[in-house]
Amino acid sequence: MNIPVVEKILRKNEQAARQNRACFDSHGLTCVNILGGAGCGKTSLLEAVLPSLRDALRIGVLEGDLATTRDAERIAALQIPVVQILTGGGCHLTATLVDAGLQHLDLAALDLLVIENVGNPICPANFDLGEHLRLAVLSVTEGHDKPAKYPLLFKDTSLVVLTKCDLLPHTDFDVRAAEGDLRRLRPELEILSTSARTGSGIDALAAWLRAHIRRSA
Amino acid sequence: MNIPVVEKILRKNEQAARQNRACFDSHGLTCVNILGGAGCGKTSLLEAVLPSLRDALRIGVLEGDLATTRDAERIAALQIPVVQILTGGGCHLTATLVDAGLQHLDLAALDLLVIENVGNPICPANFDLGEHLRLAVLSVTEGHDKPAKYPLLFKDTSLVVLTKCDLLPHTDFDVRAAEGDLRRLRPELEILSTSARTGSGIDALAAWLRAHIRRSA
Repeated sequence: MNIPVVEKILRKNEQAARQNRACFDSHGLTCVNILGGAGCGKTSLLEAVLPSLRDALRIGVLEGDLATTRDAERIAALQIPVVQILTGGGCHLTATLVDAGLQHLDLAALDLLVIENVGNPICPANFDLGEHLRLAVLSVTEGHDKPAKYPLLFKDTSLVVLTKCDLLPHTDFDVRAAEGDLRRLRPELEILSTSARTGSGIDALAAWLRAHIRRSA
Repeated sequence: MNIPVVEKILRKNEQAARQNRACFDSHGLTCVNILGGAGCGKTSLLEAVLPSLRDALRIGVLEGDLATTRDAERIAALQIPVVQILTGGGCHLTATLVDAGLQHLDLAALDLLVIENVGNPICPANFDLGEHLRLAVLSVTEGHDKPAKYPLLFKDTSLVVLTKCDLLPHTDFDVRAAEGDLRRLRPELEILSTSARTGSGIDALAAWLRAHIRRSA
């Protein structure tokens, strides 16, 4: 009797996701859901890219974590409105949790809402949060076999961001092999190489976000 | 009505875990469950440490993954009996899945069974597989904030293995901060620093496993 219950959970999530999306649309804001494993560099990527977007866009951030407010504190240090959602052990954000987080943000004052999901390459991909865009993050220190091993994360994403590319010379990561596996999942997948530390690729990511925000908003 | 169902799943898992453990004990073999995020280096660690153990111990491996048999192929290349368990999207191994995998191994011919769990720092920690020992793996490229952010992974483990320590000079990883957070979770936690690439710490890990196998078997 497990499968019907899982379906019920997902159906409840879909309903809440639809409500979130309608709410975002009514405020004319674009929502981006950022997914990736623990320590793949999601927060560092935001620290690198958000400052260059804030002049043109009003930004808010929802941080999803099991425990601690460390990620939210890093975003708050940029003077960007942020809400920390603690799942208390839960392995992914749900649309209902996001809705609860939204109560603490002034959506009318935002153009871009960034949701940083729980660090987990698996479960978050199954839960629509009502976002317009999805970014799947893969650090080169995780290994180029990950797109083949975690297809759900990469299959339906709007963009794949490779992070920590400054460490490429010190790893065995084969960019071509990763790109090959990604394109086998979806031939037209867009892939961006970045390094939050050196700033490489961060302008391209900012440009990608600006272009897609205009299109969807 | 969700919580009772989750409880039922966990109760079913506990029952299967007890059966697995009784089965391991009846064969006098020690089972080690290896947990950690995607790309933290679990398979590389096994490739480094298992060859030095195989002379004294008869080893078998269960590989848990969402997709592909890549990890199992790497273990098979060491001429070690291995079974790949594909979860088909599931984010963790269950004791029932392990039981199914055991049907393909000759347990009477093993001293050590290694289970490499699905790469995920969250869900696998909630599922007892019947193992005697748990290894929690953290790569230094993931960042020293992970013990505080993913406490479930580290709280109840038998040993924490830091991996990819050859990359320490190229990262901001603060070993003392990570150790501090780990010891706040459990003051007596044992922590081992390793690099599968340079071989640093691999002998110590082999010695730890030998000592604990003797004690528990």
